[in-house]
Amino acid sequence: MKLYDFALAPNPRRVRLFLAEKGIDLEIEQVAIRDGAQFEPAFRAINPNCTVPVLQLDDGSTIADSFAICRYFEEIQPEPPLMGRTPFEKATITYWQRRVELEGFQAVAEALRNSAERLKGRALPGTLPVEQIPDLVSRGRMRVVAFFEMLNERLGEAAFVAGEDYSAADVDALTVVDFAKAIQEEPAENQTALKDWYARVAARPSAKA
Amino acid sequence: MKLYDFALAPNPRRVRLFLAEKGIDLEIEQVAIRDGAQFEPAFRAINPNCTVPVLQLDDGSTIADSFAICRYFEEIQPEPPLMGRTPFEKATITYWQRRVELEGFQAVAEALRNSAERLKGRALPGTLPVEQIPDLVSRGRMRVVAFFEMLNERLGEAAFVAGEDYSAADVDALTVVDFAKAIQEEPAENQTALKDWYARVAARPSAKA
Repeated sequence: MKLYDFALAPNPRRVRLFLAEKGIDLEIEQVAIRDGAQFEPAFRAINPNCTVPVLQLDDGSTIADSFAICRYFEEIQPEPPLMGRTPFEKATITYWQRRVELEGFQAVAEALRNSAERLKGRALPGTLPVEQIPDLVSRGRMRVVAFFEMLNERLGEAAFVAGEDYSAADVDALTVVDFAKAIQEEPAENQTALKDWYARVAARPSAKA
Repeated sequence: MKLYDFALAPNPRRVRLFLAEKGIDLEIEQVAIRDGAQFEPAFRAINPNCTVPVLQLDDGSTIADSFAICRYFEEIQPEPPLMGRTPFEKATITYWQRRVELEGFQAVAEALRNSAERLKGRALPGTLPVEQIPDLVSRGRMRVVAFFEMLNERLGEAAFVAGEDYSAADVDALTVVDFAKAIQEEPAENQTALKDWYARVAARPSAKA
């Protein structure tokens, strides 16, 4: 098995964090995204959609999405569980992963991808030419601020994002908070529940992954 | 158990289709979304995020996201499996669900929500005031066209979206193709693999759900 990765990007980081929490060690190959290597024939043969991360299995088959890769590892190595044990836990973690993705990750991504000079004409991941829309920068920032507020409120009622246990929703949320640094957004001083949670999850060895 | 639903919206439909494929019958309550009932105190008490669908369990706890609700039912009633049997099948279905969501569902949603008169100031789901951005209408349409092309290509190589078996990815993709009618987008005449697949999945009894 081999993971195609780009160390600076948030989606592959989600996978590396997840693997670190599982204690899974894997061959990792860096793809030079900043140089456009994802659009070269060699990488297109692995993932025609030109995104990372991609997990390539020993038989050559691939899984080319961070959520799908995490799901795969949860299934082949259930311990420690990061996606819940009971049906209700599994659903609750899925719920929080969706909120973190829709309200947090996509908000940071729209602010960043619609403003960064290097992403002109590529305001969305994938191969489609998508022009930047300046209004999405302020919209993205507004959404990130609202997301931090929501997350702070949530973490005032539970130790971790999806409840009393660390889960994939924490992996995702930590990835978002760190990703937001790329647009100079961070939790507010008075968001103490969020800041306390961040200190706890960022201190786990997995956070270095 | 009770499902809070809005018959005209695509996310609840995804759940109704999924339940129909599982043969699960459930108490369903309509929320008058077009009248703004999701913002009234009665519904806010069920889901402060003011979205449908919401599944309420007998103990009062809730699952307020379509993917999370489907995951719950897959766990409590695995047969027939709609999210795969093996780890690789599960990951592959997750992969296709993500592509359908990111490239299809969100494309239709951005074109619709940024143009419909009734959604002024609510260009995203949830409680945040989000102004419409006219550039997202043409962007959304371009993405829907590209999504149909991608899906047609995929369905030229597999009987169903995630492979040789009907799965949750087909539930999602059918929901998107029907949702796209709201912005007058449909598969092109020459997208025969997509049109053949659509005829097959739309003929299943579940499609009436």
